[in-house]
Amino acid sequence: MNLPRSLRKLIESFEKLPGIGPKTAQRLAFYLLHVPQENLDDFSQAVSQLKEKTILCSICFNVSETDPCPVCGSQTREKSMICVVEEPLDVLALEKTNVFKGSYHVLHGALSPLNNIGPDELYIDSLIKRLNSKSWPVKEIILATNPNMEGEATAMYLAKRIRAKNNKIKITRLGQGLPTGADLEYADETTLAKSLDGRKDF
Amino acid sequence: MNLPRSLRKLIESFEKLPGIGPKTAQRLAFYLLHVPQENLDDFSQAVSQLKEKTILCSICFNVSETDPCPVCGSQTREKSMICVVEEPLDVLALEKTNVFKGSYHVLHGALSPLNNIGPDELYIDSLIKRLNSKSWPVKEIILATNPNMEGEATAMYLAKRIRAKNNKIKITRLGQGLPTGADLEYADETTLAKSLDGRKDF
Repeated sequence: MNLPRSLRKLIESFEKLPGIGPKTAQRLAFYLLHVPQENLDDFSQAVSQLKEKTILCSICFNVSETDPCPVCGSQTREKSMICVVEEPLDVLALEKTNVFKGSYHVLHGALSPLNNIGPDELYIDSLIKRLNSKSWPVKEIILATNPNMEGEATAMYLAKRIRAKNNKIKITRLGQGLPTGADLEYADETTLAKSLDGRKDF
Repeated sequence: MNLPRSLRKLIESFEKLPGIGPKTAQRLAFYLLHVPQENLDDFSQAVSQLKEKTILCSICFNVSETDPCPVCGSQTREKSMICVVEEPLDVLALEKTNVFKGSYHVLHGALSPLNNIGPDELYIDSLIKRLNSKSWPVKEIILATNPNMEGEATAMYLAKRIRAKNNKIKITRLGQGLPTGADLEYADETTLAKSLDGRKDF
């Protein structure tokens, strides 16, 4: 049996999304058949206008509606502290903690030679340029790339580049150890080793 | 930090889909930021035109582009055998087996008093009407509702309604037992009991 073309097209579109297989795509498309046309129009508009109204901040390269973005344009955020992350979603996660009051720099990825992602594919040069800014002298760079192989390699590469440019900047890396709510029994060796290494006075 | 409005709107749209939580919705929306506008337009169009070009077949109530649908309009499908299913996706699954050559009837749900879904919310009356058709005398009804509580209740209700109308129609239910590739060790008691009950000569 051939499905209606419009249904097939929507299933194909859903299938292209990450983590959505053929079965889920079918389920989502058939679910939308029961949804009022009004909501479909909202959804449709949100998809087509997504990029129209979204730009990258020319300072931190986070996604934003304005340039500079609200963080870079804010008077209350400390410009001397830059937290370097891989993706815009990481900024979102950090902002939710309400702890960090500095600014960000989004690399839009991590070094991954196997996937042909080298330093030129990431917003690294623009980060190095920010270190030179006379109006906003940078005192600390927090390397907040993911604690996996690509993220660690990226952090090491960045530290080298930053050091070569400016020897006085403090370079830090996010603390590693046991996540809140974890169970020692099930923690892997690397995490436990890192948590011992990063132990604090109590 | 406030996300751009267009991004927030898309995340909200994704969150409304079944099985997609806030984190997945975020991930999907941010993924689409990297997708060419052309593909976004395709996706957007597929969503908005989904229902425009999709109707329900007036005979079997399956989703279709034409009325009657290809199955009901086909000369080679047996009209004397109707397979009753809950959802259009079930028709798709059955068609993939390439075994069934009869026609379908889609109820668009199953009886579920707790969710306020009674016989009037499903396409049951139209099924009963089909039994009367002089041009297409029905010989067998296969009740292919899901083998769960709602599906079984629906099958029982349908059997009663069909019997009350026509005492000669053969009413069958899909075979139950162990699925292919299963392991006896891990099968639940109900399934094993059904498989014993439905054993066949070898």
